[in-house]
Amino acid sequence: MTTYAVIPAGGAGTRLWPWSNQQTPKHLLDLTGNGRSLLQETYDRIAPLTDGVFVLTEERQVPMIKEQLPEALFIVEPTARGTANALGLAAFQIADSDPEAIMVSVAADHVIRGADAYRDSINLAIRTAQTGGRLVTIGLQPTYAATGFGYIRVAEREGEAYPVEEFVEKPTLVRAEEYLASGRYYWNLSMFAWRASAFLDELQRVAPRHYEGLLGVRAGTGSYADLPNEAVDYAVLERTDRLYLVPGTFEWLDVGSWAELLEMLPGDENGNSIDGESAVIDTRGSLLSAPGKLVAAIGVEDMIVIDTDQALLVLPRSRAQDVKKIVEMLRKTGKTGYP
Amino acid sequence: MTTYAVIPAGGAGTRLWPWSNQQTPKHLLDLTGNGRSLLQETYDRIAPLTDGVFVLTEERQVPMIKEQLPEALFIVEPTARGTANALGLAAFQIADSDPEAIMVSVAADHVIRGADAYRDSINLAIRTAQTGGRLVTIGLQPTYAATGFGYIRVAEREGEAYPVEEFVEKPTLVRAEEYLASGRYYWNLSMFAWRASAFLDELQRVAPRHYEGLLGVRAGTGSYADLPNEAVDYAVLERTDRLYLVPGTFEWLDVGSWAELLEMLPGDENGNSIDGESAVIDTRGSLLSAPGKLVAAIGVEDMIVIDTDQALLVLPRSRAQDVKKIVEMLRKTGKTGYP
Repeated sequence: MTTYAVIPAGGAGTRLWPWSNQQTPKHLLDLTGNGRSLLQETYDRIAPLTDGVFVLTEERQVPMIKEQLPEALFIVEPTARGTANALGLAAFQIADSDPEAIMVSVAADHVIRGADAYRDSINLAIRTAQTGGRLVTIGLQPTYAATGFGYIRVAEREGEAYPVEEFVEKPTLVRAEEYLASGRYYWNLSMFAWRASAFLDELQRVAPRHYEGLLGVRAGTGSYADLPNEAVDYAVLERTDRLYLVPGTFEWLDVGSWAELLEMLPGDENGNSIDGESAVIDTRGSLLSAPGKLVAAIGVEDMIVIDTDQALLVLPRSRAQDVKKIVEMLRKTGKTGYP
Repeated sequence: MTTYAVIPAGGAGTRLWPWSNQQTPKHLLDLTGNGRSLLQETYDRIAPLTDGVFVLTEERQVPMIKEQLPEALFIVEPTARGTANALGLAAFQIADSDPEAIMVSVAADHVIRGADAYRDSINLAIRTAQTGGRLVTIGLQPTYAATGFGYIRVAEREGEAYPVEEFVEKPTLVRAEEYLASGRYYWNLSMFAWRASAFLDELQRVAPRHYEGLLGVRAGTGSYADLPNEAVDYAVLERTDRLYLVPGTFEWLDVGSWAELLEMLPGDENGNSIDGESAVIDTRGSLLSAPGKLVAAIGVEDMIVIDTDQALLVLPRSRAQDVKKIVEMLRKTGKTGYP
C-alpha cells in the first residue's frame, strides 16, 4: 500500500497581517520561533509517515514554497477555487499513479505537539481508510467550549472509528457547552485520509458538478476557474455516508489570529509576549512585537501591537478577528504597497 | 535702551521620549510640523523684538543648537545647575556689556500663536521693567481649571502691571476651579523681563549664596557645579517684593507630553492624529505615529503609539506623564543604545 500526504497550502492568512500577506503567506511564517515555518514543520511531521509529500497550492506560491521546501512534490491549482476542487485535483493526480493509494491531507498552518500521538493518529486514520472505501477525518475531543471552531457529531463507535452524523458550524457559547458535555462532538481539524479512488467515487456520486468539471479540465475542454467554488466539507463530506472520524490524541493549535498567537507564545509573568528589548510598566496580557527595537509600554492591557518595516498594527486582543477587515480595506483602496 | 533676549534651552524633555532624548532635546524638535523646531520658532519670534538673542544652554548642547541656529549668540552653563544660577550667569554676562540692558527670558519649548499679541505682551513687559528696578513675569489668564501648571496670585493692578503676591504649585482640580473663578490667578509661563542690574541686585539681596557663588565662579575661585541647585521661582521670585506680572494676550501651549501634543495637532473627525498612511476602524482619540509606514488600527481608543527607528512606545493617553519613568528606567539599566 502506498500512502501520499497532501498539504493544502493556499491563501495568505489575512488575520495575521502584516506578518502574513500575499508575499509571505501564513504557512511560510516561523510562528513558533524554532527556525522552521508552519509548512516546514508540517512537512517534517508527515514525511516520515508517508511515501511522498505533495504540496497543493496555487501557481503563484510555488516559487516561495520551493525556497522553503526544495524536496517537496507539487500539485498545482491553476487558481484558488475551493477545497472540493483542490482535493479532487489531488485525488485525480494521485490516482493517475495509483488509484488505490491512500491520500492523507493535513493543513499547512496548524501547530501540533506530541510526535508519537500524531504518528499514532495518522496511522489509525490510514488503517481506517484502507477498508470499505471509507473517507476518514481526524477530529479532536474538545477540551473547552470553543466557539471558534466547527464541530463534527458522531454516532456510536464502530471498531476504531466513529461514523460521522453531522457537521456543525462555529457554535454559540451555550451550544459549545452542550457539545462539550455530550461527548459526541469533535473539533473539525480538516485532516483527512482516504483512498484516491474512494474520494473520486464519492465526488462523482455527491458532487457531480465538481467531478465532471474536473474531468473537463483534465480533458482540456473546461476551465478550472469556472468550477463551482465550494469547501470539501459542504460539497462532499456533509453529503456522503462513508465518512468516519478517528480521534486525534496530539496537542493541536490553530494559530488563526494574533490573540491565539499570544496564547501560544511563552509569556512573561504578566502574560505579555514582547519581541524586542523591553522596558515596561503596569503592562499585562499584551503582544508587542518590534524586532530589533526597544519596546516600551506603560499601562498597556490586552493590546496587540505589531511593528514591521512596512506597517504598524494596533488593536485590542478582543478585536483580533477583525484584522482581516484591514486587509480587505487595503485591497479595496488599492494600497498594494502594503501587501 | 538695549534689550537682549535669553532663551534657556537645557534638558532633554523626557516626557516626549523617544522623539526627545539626550541626542535630540525637545526644543530641537519640529512638533508643529511647520519645518522649524520649537527653539527656532522661539528665536524667530523674539529676535525682531530685541537687540540680540542669547541661547542659554549646557556645553554639550551648543553644537546641535548651532546647527539649527547658526546666527545665535550663546551663554554657556558649565553644567545644568538650576534656573536661578543659569539666569544669574546670563545677567552677569549681559551686565558686563551694559548693566542697564533689559534681559527678556522666554522658554525654548513652548508653542505660541498670535504674533501681534506676543509682540505687545513682550513690549509691555519691557516697558514695565524699565522703571523702579522691577522684575517682571508674563502670566496667562487661565481659560480652564488646569491642574498641570503653576499659578501666580496677583494684587490690584498698578498702572499696566499687577504686583505679585504669591506663587502656587500645580493645584488640585477643586483649587484650580477656585483660581479660575477668582480672576486673581495667572498661569506661570516662566517668561521674564528685567534689567540685568535689577536681577543681580535682587539675587544678592534674597539669594546671596547664589550671588556670591556666581562671583566666585567668575573669579575662578569656585565651581559652578557646587552652587545650590534651585529654580529661580523658589530662590528669587518668591522672595522678592519687586515682582510684577503683566498678562500675556497670545495663545500659549506647553506641549509637555504626548497627550498635549495630540491635543495640539490637527486631528481627524474622531480626534486621532495619525502620522503615516492609514487604515483604521473604530479608532478614537489616539496618537499613532510611524512615519513612512502604513498605520493600521482597529478598536483603539485614547492610545498613544510612537514608532521610531530605535524604539516602539505604547501607552494610554492617561499615562502620558509617566513616559519619564521609562526614561529613568533606561538610564538606570544603562540601556544607552536607546537614548
